[in-house]
Amino acid sequence: MTPPHDLASLSPLELRRLIRRGDYAGHTSGLGQRHLQANIVILQRAWADEFLRFCVLNPRACPLLDVTEPGSPRFHKLGADIDVRSDVPLYRVYRRGQPHRETSDIGELWEADFVAFAIGCSFSFEQALQDEGIALRHIEQGRNVAMYRTHLANTPAGRLAGSMVVSMRPLKAADAVRASQITGRFPLTHGAPVHIGDPGLIGIADLQAPDYGEPVDLADDELPVFWACGVTPQAVLAEAEPELFITHAPGCMLVSDLLYGQL
Amino acid sequence: MTPPHDLASLSPLELRRLIRRGDYAGHTSGLGQRHLQANIVILQRAWADEFLRFCVLNPRACPLLDVTEPGSPRFHKLGADIDVRSDVPLYRVYRRGQPHRETSDIGELWEADFVAFAIGCSFSFEQALQDEGIALRHIEQGRNVAMYRTHLANTPAGRLAGSMVVSMRPLKAADAVRASQITGRFPLTHGAPVHIGDPGLIGIADLQAPDYGEPVDLADDELPVFWACGVTPQAVLAEAEPELFITHAPGCMLVSDLLYGQL
Repeated sequence: MTPPHDLASLSPLELRRLIRRGDYAGHTSGLGQRHLQANIVILQRAWADEFLRFCVLNPRACPLLDVTEPGSPRFHKLGADIDVRSDVPLYRVYRRGQPHRETSDIGELWEADFVAFAIGCSFSFEQALQDEGIALRHIEQGRNVAMYRTHLANTPAGRLAGSMVVSMRPLKAADAVRASQITGRFPLTHGAPVHIGDPGLIGIADLQAPDYGEPVDLADDELPVFWACGVTPQAVLAEAEPELFITHAPGCMLVSDLLYGQL
Repeated sequence: MTPPHDLASLSPLELRRLIRRGDYAGHTSGLGQRHLQANIVILQRAWADEFLRFCVLNPRACPLLDVTEPGSPRFHKLGADIDVRSDVPLYRVYRRGQPHRETSDIGELWEADFVAFAIGCSFSFEQALQDEGIALRHIEQGRNVAMYRTHLANTPAGRLAGSMVVSMRPLKAADAVRASQITGRFPLTHGAPVHIGDPGLIGIADLQAPDYGEPVDLADDELPVFWACGVTPQAVLAEAEPELFITHAPGCMLVSDLLYGQL
């Protein structure tokens, strides 16, 4: 197994080869030489058409980067040789809406009518913020970002509905303004914030009790800044309870060959 | 029939009411008080899932604003009381890929599995350019914009493939730069240009012979600036020859209740 300190120097293709061989099954934050990373959702055809519609109708939470033909494990646009059955470091398999197990290869689970979706991921916009000198506390503290269920209703599509999940980053006011400008340029990685300030206004009771990830401290001169989060589709699917669906495991994304402007 | 000089003062809802009653069946350029307008495509379910995938994979030409549930004539997001069977001024009905007839109401043609798609339209970005002081010659000259087939391949989805159709506007270099910045802010109305300069590089043989619309003069100090065009989906569908599909008639768009930032 390649030691972790070498991983950051690998190209996306080299990294995916390592993953495909089963030699890396960890998180991808900071890997892939700044190329776009993607949340992955894999569904049977009976749910795929509704889910595609759901993503189109909820682009802040589910910005679609690519979608496969039914039955094909190949993406069109993310890279030349990507096999979605093996190139994600770690997968999470859900049965009847519940996490069932994690695995580093889903070749044996693949079905003839599976459709795979690639959805933009916050790792890319966090990189853009740091490049502009905006420090992100959860990264400084080595924690997962804090994520919350809100009462912001998604636009329903068939059996899929639910509410938006958001991620929160504490920022001083001036940085909150700049972060809005910077992330607003990147709609395919969730775009501009959906809320700034009072968590109660979007249905969050307690910032110290996130529904996913880990809590982070908020200083007196900071505002909580909320972005639509790619956990939304997982939460919505878990609620709808398809017999089977597969996602990446948290933080273990598909690393693409694309830079932002190439999509 | 309300005289044309009154139309521009109507709200989107008032305008759609007039259209629904059959009292206006004309173009919508400059109408609807700056609200987003949409290209409309209506398909049977047997083609709708592929077309949805096609739009997702080709967002420059086909930026999706909204899509209905199968069989429902109601959009989710474009406005509170929109019926896609009656609220477009004029429809074009295609049979086996050929334009068959135009009509101002498709209530009698509606089928239980129809899906309607709303796709962003260049009228909105042209307004944004004019607001920034960039004059558009085809508008000054009262012509349709010039549109061309290119050799830029669309990303295929099932039976849908073909190449991108672009619109062209002649601009001085400084305005071409500013127009790129301005339209780049609006990905849902085709975003930034896909090409500037030599038409041959994207497969256009003769600027004076557009495939759709009308030619426009290019001065010696001007560059042709090309944007992905909402005619692309119509061209692609005509080529694929579904038994039946319906679009808006050229220039006769669905006027929504939304301003750009509200989507």
